[in-house]
Amino acid sequence: MELIYYIDLLGTMVFAISGAMAAMRHNIDIFGAAFTGFVTAIGGGSLRDIFLNLRPVWVDDGNYLLAILTGVIIAILFKKVLGKLARTLSLFDALGIGFFTVVGVQKSLAFESSGIAAVVLGLFSAVMGGVTRDTLLNETPLIFRKEIYATACLSGAALFVLLNRIGVDYNLNAFISAAVISVVRILAVKYKLTLPIVGG
Amino acid sequence: MELIYYIDLLGTMVFAISGAMAAMRHNIDIFGAAFTGFVTAIGGGSLRDIFLNLRPVWVDDGNYLLAILTGVIIAILFKKVLGKLARTLSLFDALGIGFFTVVGVQKSLAFESSGIAAVVLGLFSAVMGGVTRDTLLNETPLIFRKEIYATACLSGAALFVLLNRIGVDYNLNAFISAAVISVVRILAVKYKLTLPIVGG
Amino acid sequence: MELIYYIDLLGTMVFAISGAMAAMRHNIDIFGAAFTGFVTAIGGGSLRDIFLNLRPVWVDDGNYLLAILTGVIIAILFKKVLGKLARTLSLFDALGIGFFTVVGVQKSLAFESSGIAAVVLGLFSAVMGGVTRDTLLNETPLIFRKEIYATACLSGAALFVLLNRIGVDYNLNAFISAAVISVVRILAVKYKLTLPIVGG
Repeated sequence: MELIYYIDLLGTMVFAISGAMAAMRHNIDIFGAAFTGFVTAIGGGSLRDIFLNLRPVWVDDGNYLLAILTGVIIAILFKKVLGKLARTLSLFDALGIGFFTVVGVQKSLAFESSGIAAVVLGLFSAVMGGVTRDTLLNETPLIFRKEIYATACLSGAALFVLLNRIGVDYNLNAFISAAVISVVRILAVKYKLTLPIVGG
Repeated sequence: MELIYYIDLLGTMVFAISGAMAAMRHNIDIFGAAFTGFVTAIGGGSLRDIFLNLRPVWVDDGNYLLAILTGVIIAILFKKVLGKLARTLSLFDALGIGFFTVVGVQKSLAFESSGIAAVVLGLFSAVMGGVTRDTLLNETPLIFRKEIYATACLSGAALFVLLNRIGVDYNLNAFISAAVISVVRILAVKYKLTLPIVGG
Repeated sequence: MELIYYIDLLGTMVFAISGAMAAMRHNIDIFGAAFTGFVTAIGGGSLRDIFLNLRPVWVDDGNYLLAILTGVIIAILFKKVLGKLARTLSLFDALGIGFFTVVGVQKSLAFESSGIAAVVLGLFSAVMGGVTRDTLLNETPLIFRKEIYATACLSGAALFVLLNRIGVDYNLNAFISAAVISVVRILAVKYKLTLPIVGG
């Protein structure tokens, strides 16, 4: 459990970095960067918790806000270096969405959502921070227009619910499902895999 | 009660269709269409429930998500046919907002909101899914710029609260108020009725 | 307590006026102006309450919605006069954000949030209505691009938590912290003080 908690803090920090960096690509002041980092980091989990009628974890545990503050400061201080590490950051992001999706599904099931709602709430945990970030920055949400991203989360979330129902060991299941998400995402970036466009 | 439940599922599906179709008018992938359909379908009711400090109904009852999934699939498969049925869809939408507004007012009153808050929450139930859809797609919300829409909901919601207070039979009241909304909306579309523009 | 309640209603009305006036700068109908006024007025406090897992105050107390309605009507009727009172409105706004920030911090602490979360929630109380307004109107949020605004709220909120922790009298603390926010904001407008831009 301890380990999960620290991974959660670390993941929150990484999301804050990505949010602040996205904001800095706009003509935005320090506060705007910090705010966007904050929203990106807590948006997904907060929405999940609100739908579950719970208080988001950061309201009670100040460490999450400290992790975000650290992430924002790192983003501002090391902007140039981080800008060159796009590939590494993308890898971290792939690991992050795997982790956050599975944690989100687990929490939803623990608070007795339906199985299909747990899949949706797992997806939300991973991607809604980014959606809010893009909406704030007045951009079409990234998840609508780049390589397979949300779909990876959705597949892994569904897999977790399925394996859970047929009785696969909880920790093994979490590991497998998170790995599926991260690997699908990494392959999608590497080979530029996209979903069919249905519009136009 | 049974009948109301199935109408609710049907209305949710229709909203999902309208959301997915709006998304497909943009250059968006299958996931984006599904996501937009989902948000359109659950946005209004979820916001109402969150303001009432309740868990949105779809978190506990998986049938709503299945209805949405069905709606999204219908929208994708029958995109062209549906595109030609604009008038029919507009009729369904008019019936839908009447139904959802009244259900929203009833639920709010049942959970002891003030009367005026019930009017606002009834309105939200019907229109906030569409507002979220338009915000996601980076458009000025439709309810801000087309024929009388939200105002119809607002009038019907106020009528319900009023008739309820003077003791009109609950089911009769629901029917009258929903009918007023749908009829006002249908007439507004037919005769292009708009509210005065106050800006500029 | 009575006085605080009436200031709260007054502040809500002022925010509704500012929201409706922002909407009227766009090509928007009466309903859109009212809706934007409403969202601006209740957005921040509602978000705070939702994060605290409480029902927003306007759901139970209809006076808030009446205050908003009054504000919207004032904005529509006196649009031209108010347009010339930009400086006075800016002063009211500066007083308003000081008040709302401190009330937000107090409520969060009263419902046992962590200290750092109370700072964030105090900030949200004051600025998230405006952020939602700008997002709805499809503009880059004002707090991202104008003179020091949110940062003033953030400083005053942090000051309140700090003085509270070292045992300063509650009412005195509230007065000092709110005054700091309002004065910083007024000076920022007068001398066009901005935060460093980190993007670009």
